Amino acid sequence: MQIAIVLFDGFTALDAVGPYQTLGPLPGAETVFVAARTGPVKDDTGNLALVATRTFAEVTRPDLVVVPGGPDVPVRDQELRDWLRAADATTTWTTSVCTGSLLLAAAGLLEGRRATAHWLWLDRIRQYGVEPTSERVVFDGKYVTAAGVSSGIDMGLALAGRIAGDDHAQVVQLMTEYDPQPPYDAGSPDKAPAHLVEMMRSL
Amino acid sequence: MQIAIVLFDGFTALDAVGPYQTLGPLPGAETVFVAARTGPVKDDTGNLALVATRTFAEVTRPDLVVVPGGPDVPVRDQELRDWLRAADATTTWTTSVCTGSLLLAAAGLLEGRRATAHWLWLDRIRQYGVEPTSERVVFDGKYVTAAGVSSGIDMGLALAGRIAGDDHAQVVQLMTEYDPQPPYDAGSPDKAPAHLVEMMRSL
Repeated sequence: MQIAIVLFDGFTALDAVGPYQTLGPLPGAETVFVAARTGPVKDDTGNLALVATRTFAEVTRPDLVVVPGGPDVPVRDQELRDWLRAADATTTWTTSVCTGSLLLAAAGLLEGRRATAHWLWLDRIRQYGVEPTSERVVFDGKYVTAAGVSSGIDMGLALAGRIAGDDHAQVVQLMTEYDPQPPYDAGSPDKAPAHLVEMMRSL
Repeated sequence: MQIAIVLFDGFTALDAVGPYQTLGPLPGAETVFVAARTGPVKDDTGNLALVATRTFAEVTRPDLVVVPGGPDVPVRDQELRDWLRAADATTTWTTSVCTGSLLLAAAGLLEGRRATAHWLWLDRIRQYGVEPTSERVVFDGKYVTAAGVSSGIDMGLALAGRIAGDDHAQVVQLMTEYDPQPPYDAGSPDKAPAHLVEMMRSL
């Protein structure tokens, strides 16, 4: 099975690396990082680059696609949209993290479906005929969308379980020692202090 | 403040990217990825490379050092050990994730201190005069060590709170939507099914 993780200028690094770390160990999986050109692709801060190992033209029949998000995703990038549509025609699973669901939606792949996104951008997927939901990981048919940034870890484990069974997914969780103990309980707008949520909404 | 994240062949990607995503937003922070040479550095699977932006020689006075781990960390790499010792002489914080603590310990930086590591490798830090503890994030003076792979996210948030205050750290948690909902409760050897823990210990 080929896992294709999409990179584009301005992606958020953890959006890509969370699913990579949890889906990569799938039995028989080959993971490729795909972009318009091979070579380094800079993230949303410009301080980190991940290396794309395949061009879009070289990845024609991926089995599983992961689309990370970022604060300013290229929803009008025609090459990316065309590739997403073509790849999706043969995938078993098409997935996204964070605002990556905006890219799937802009490519017309989520119309009439339930999907999620980073809480700050969640309403924007409505314009593409998508039903937004604030659940952390949403399965709708072969489409799996995850909420903001770190949720790609939960999505990767959930999907690994669907594909390879509970024992496999639990081994991955144990190997990544994913026993979260955040020092604060501020990971969603329902839980974080109201003044911080308001500040972020106003930016 | 300069944050230096160390890269070496065979590092685990999430070990580096978890702290990067949570510490990078510190006010006034400049994050650099440092290695023996600039350019792509491959992770433990060989499928992903992160780009080192500075050589060890170019980073002489980092304020905060992050050392990721991997399944086979280069504890005998003299250049890396020398750099860790020299950098540590002026850091405000010296940190590690996963088996990265083995590298700090091998450089002689953790002697007599309490530290943690990935659960499968935890006992190995004892040989360097370090007291192992299975806590997820351990502060001992300016040394902060985190357990396996994903624990670097918790470490980054805890340290961000110490450096820039609770509001800042909670904004980072909210921005990364770190409201973990793992689909299984198998993230530590105390919680995972015993047969899976045994299988991993036997590998």
